[in-house]
Amino acid sequence: MYRAGPGAGDLARGLGFATMISISFKPGGEAGQVEEGSTILAASEQLGVTITAPCGGRGRCGRCRVIVVRGCGPITQAEEDLLTGEELRNGVRLACEALLVEDAQVIIPSDSRTIGGKILADHRGEEMTLNPNVTGSAVELPPPSLSDQRSDFERVADGLGIPAQDLVIHRDALAQLPTVLRENDFHVSVVRVGEVVSAVRPTGAQPCGLGAAVDIGTTTVVAYLVDLHTGETLATASELNPQARHGHDLITRIEFVQSTPTGLDDMRRLIVDLINRLLAEATADAGVMRRDIYEVAIVGNTCMHHLFLGLDPRNLAQAPYIPVTREPVELSADEAGLAINRAGNVYCLPVIAGFVGADTVGVLLMSRLAERGHPTLAVDIGTNGEVMLAANGRLLTTSCAAGPAFEGGEIRYGVRAAEGAIERVWLRNGSIGYATIGGKRPSGICGSGIFDVVAALLDSGAADQTGRLATDEAAVELAPGIATRLRGEGPQREFLLVEGAGAGNGEITFTQKDLREVQLAKGAVRAAVELLCARVAIASDEIEEVLLAGAFGNYIDRRSALRMGLLPHVPLERIHGIGNAAGAGALAALLSLDERQRAADLARNAEHVELMADPRFQMAFADSMMFPEAE
Amino acid sequence: MYRAGPGAGDLARGLGFATMISISFKPGGEAGQVEEGSTILAASEQLGVTITAPCGGRGRCGRCRVIVVRGCGPITQAEEDLLTGEELRNGVRLACEALLVEDAQVIIPSDSRTIGGKILADHRGEEMTLNPNVTGSAVELPPPSLSDQRSDFERVADGLGIPAQDLVIHRDALAQLPTVLRENDFHVSVVRVGEVVSAVRPTGAQPCGLGAAVDIGTTTVVAYLVDLHTGETLATASELNPQARHGHDLITRIEFVQSTPTGLDDMRRLIVDLINRLLAEATADAGVMRRDIYEVAIVGNTCMHHLFLGLDPRNLAQAPYIPVTREPVELSADEAGLAINRAGNVYCLPVIAGFVGADTVGVLLMSRLAERGHPTLAVDIGTNGEVMLAANGRLLTTSCAAGPAFEGGEIRYGVRAAEGAIERVWLRNGSIGYATIGGKRPSGICGSGIFDVVAALLDSGAADQTGRLATDEAAVELAPGIATRLRGEGPQREFLLVEGAGAGNGEITFTQKDLREVQLAKGAVRAAVELLCARVAIASDEIEEVLLAGAFGNYIDRRSALRMGLLPHVPLERIHGIGNAAGAGALAALLSLDERQRAADLARNAEHVELMADPRFQMAFADSMMFPEAE
Repeated sequence: MYRAGPGAGDLARGLGFATMISISFKPGGEAGQVEEGSTILAASEQLGVTITAPCGGRGRCGRCRVIVVRGCGPITQAEEDLLTGEELRNGVRLACEALLVEDAQVIIPSDSRTIGGKILADHRGEEMTLNPNVTGSAVELPPPSLSDQRSDFERVADGLGIPAQDLVIHRDALAQLPTVLRENDFHVSVVRVGEVVSAVRPTGAQPCGLGAAVDIGTTTVVAYLVDLHTGETLATASELNPQARHGHDLITRIEFVQSTPTGLDDMRRLIVDLINRLLAEATADAGVMRRDIYEVAIVGNTCMHHLFLGLDPRNLAQAPYIPVTREPVELSADEAGLAINRAGNVYCLPVIAGFVGADTVGVLLMSRLAERGHPTLAVDIGTNGEVMLAANGRLLTTSCAAGPAFEGGEIRYGVRAAEGAIERVWLRNGSIGYATIGGKRPSGICGSGIFDVVAALLDSGAADQTGRLATDEAAVELAPGIATRLRGEGPQREFLLVEGAGAGNGEITFTQKDLREVQLAKGAVRAAVELLCARVAIASDEIEEVLLAGAFGNYIDRRSALRMGLLPHVPLERIHGIGNAAGAGALAALLSLDERQRAADLARNAEHVELMADPRFQMAFADSMMFPEAE
Repeated sequence: MYRAGPGAGDLARGLGFATMISISFKPGGEAGQVEEGSTILAASEQLGVTITAPCGGRGRCGRCRVIVVRGCGPITQAEEDLLTGEELRNGVRLACEALLVEDAQVIIPSDSRTIGGKILADHRGEEMTLNPNVTGSAVELPPPSLSDQRSDFERVADGLGIPAQDLVIHRDALAQLPTVLRENDFHVSVVRVGEVVSAVRPTGAQPCGLGAAVDIGTTTVVAYLVDLHTGETLATASELNPQARHGHDLITRIEFVQSTPTGLDDMRRLIVDLINRLLAEATADAGVMRRDIYEVAIVGNTCMHHLFLGLDPRNLAQAPYIPVTREPVELSADEAGLAINRAGNVYCLPVIAGFVGADTVGVLLMSRLAERGHPTLAVDIGTNGEVMLAANGRLLTTSCAAGPAFEGGEIRYGVRAAEGAIERVWLRNGSIGYATIGGKRPSGICGSGIFDVVAALLDSGAADQTGRLATDEAAVELAPGIATRLRGEGPQREFLLVEGAGAGNGEITFTQKDLREVQLAKGAVRAAVELLCARVAIASDEIEEVLLAGAFGNYIDRRSALRMGLLPHVPLERIHGIGNAAGAGALAALLSLDERQRAADLARNAEHVELMADPRFQMAFADSMMFPEAE
């Protein structure tokens, strides 16, 4: 039995005989050459594809499951231990174990994709230096005597080489001083948050403690726990945003705040309590203490940012859409209500406008959008679409109300991305194929599935350029496997995606109304793209590169996005998913004051374009509703 | 009936015919020339004597009671209304009403003396300019529009002419912004505490809100509520320090903190809760809101300072007597636990050493000790004596354990200054006279009475230079009214001050042991004076001026203090009471950043002398125990 040892690639490289093979990943389409004998995980890292590997690729956790279509060597012991017989029969492998032996094709299920971290890891090596706001210094001080009656605080200041009158110390650190100094023979470690002495600890402890980056999404909140001395992420924790009980979308939540006397505080507590739970979970996972967290960096859209800070969001929702503040906000852990070290600091990344938030700043920051040297578009789509364009030395941002269609909202069988959601749809042999998350029985269609359905409807002729499903008359010209799936009349007309025993009994359809919702959403985004291009006097087809941010960018099929005309026409390989740039931006701000400054500068220097204030927007919107012709 | 109109003095002055008369005040001995027809209150202000006048001298409150020995015109209607027949028969007058018609002698009862305020009032006119840390600015801002989407915060920053990135705003102020701006058509008043925007309010409100100065004494806590715009004191409130339940003196309180697990927090809460009560009372009195208080300045000895801040005081009580910090401490209202505006600031004046606290800094600050141009001594005596000396361009401070004798502690019939306490004792016709506070039946002897008793014992020959009460043998040479008051043998020997039906039944004596306690106390203070003089190479009789601070300075008879040798020999008129300089210092720091800076500089530049570290101290102490010879 063939069994490539883990060192085979190394050996070949050592002899100068490394053989290169091709590999391509789905759904992202990333492809390239890697050395024969690499693991899939190594290959993915080389090509910038993110695969979850919590155990660090040591064949222990079994989380880096991928589906290998072809190209890998035999199943390893670790895979036999960690995968079920059914998984092995279906081609599931562990990316850290499976070795590439020939040109390979690999499908990465959404469960195995990393959210965040990747971009940061990329940048850390390239241009980001570890320079956190929280720093630690060890000092060895002489003990006091009758001839040296300096106060404990002056002694520490002198040890740091800072005049006592220029050194600020938190009350809690001041209160620790006499005991910690004397229990440690005046040899201690001083933790400073910014310029403020926030703790004095035994020298044995972590030099500068822990930090956390929190990405407050409208739907999901993710917390990353980080060792500020090494920059290493120790644990992550995430949960659905509990504010959703008062509305899935931002406008409903803002209405709740407006209509409920305690609404603002309710919303603030929901998010603050959740963050405290996530930090408790992450610190428990990592076996560390919450009180050793000295700083939390927060990123979120402007509404999430306002609700976290207890700022009334009502003016975000009505013209002229004014945020309370756009500057970075710093406040004490106590003021923020976060259960970290009481001397800790909370840093909220800046926002740009009422609907262009700190998450967008994260995209600008991590993508280095303004520094790529050619006209580049970045798009982040949730319920709202944020569109960013760097061209001709300018950096523009705008937002548009995409509506919830791209996340499955307002779609008859739309669901959020979860087990059983149809995440991929394709034309096959004149009919339709689909795949669900986790391979489970289909429960509905999630965002990436919706993109694929629309592309398939257009490609098959089941829908035309105007977004109308083919009539029975027109359907006779379609492949029978497609034509037979069209049924109903007028607004009730629909395309049968999954057969079942009727609505509610397994049947899943995509309706004429669903298609109209998608059209409205994509029209809004595309119109925003066109308008930004007009502002910098370029045509949208002069855009050379497109970056797709967030969950949207991670999961949608780029071809489907092009097919429906959401994006201007650029070559497929010039469209890149950039992962969770929001969370990565928070991590960057946590780990580097340079990045923090850069974020503030970006937020200030980005030109925000208010579509509603531009009389050309309605026209551009109408133009953008149409789907492109088939190529 | 002669009745000088209130304008008589003005008229005379207008005609150039003002007649001057002499007036002297007891017990302070202040004397000088004032215009005939002045009120006693006006005369007292002119001579720097403080008399309580809460109604502002308008004849309404009846609080400025004084005893007129001679020199005043007839009783006015207001006096008839506000004073009892008995009071009027005993010569009680209202200082604001009684007009001076000839050379006058006036006794100010302790009830009518103002604590604090006076020195501040003096300095305000001369050299202190109102320059508080809390400032208010009115701004008129353009409302937002689709073409002006600046955030609320940027709009305010632009209105203040400060770049938004350089302006810090408290979360609460940020949270108020959207509502306050829109309810006031974007015309608002911005309150800043230091550089931080702490509130945004309707323009009609007080421009920069209120402040409070708090003097945390070991025995009494006083809060002054101040309008920061005018500098006016709106109300004062005071209460006994409730920490006394865990010990009257500092050492006992520190022992409580050391021996009780929750001791430090218990002590902190007692004082914080009290300050909150005092602020509630003062704001209710003045008809204002606590949340309009934006800053509190705190003054207290080092132990009070530490307990207020929750800093462990144990190292203050044991060599080498190290404070946790000596620098000014600033913290948020929340951190301090004070129920003022949540964006408010708490400023604690600096301390100098373990037993030389912010109260002493207040004395240095308000007395301008280092700027008087001649060798000047300042003394503040409670349980601890703080001694300050400015001479030869240097400023020295030290503290000595005076013990509680000067406050009535460890004295058999010693009591705190309250109604019925013997506050004044004198020799009269070969016997003893005394006066009690409020003219009530004598309950014991308070501090100023103790000074007078000792002076009387020495003057009458009832005690000799070594501090021994005359034996029966020696007493035959004394006046019979004195000799018959001496009784008992050895350590039980005592001087009968008030006759009664035995101990516990009205009898009050002053014992040999009491005299020894006083000797120890005065010896410690005088030794400190001598040692400071030695450090700057002057003899103590080169001191040209002596300032007596605090309650001590307000109430003791300076002649008695000289007589017992507590002070070096300077002319009586070169000894000045300077009132409650601690509270005045807190007020000054509240009202003027210049004074605050000056306080920090004084604390840093004062040289602290540790008596225990000086081998000459024991010798000086022994020398200083003796009483001076009669002159």
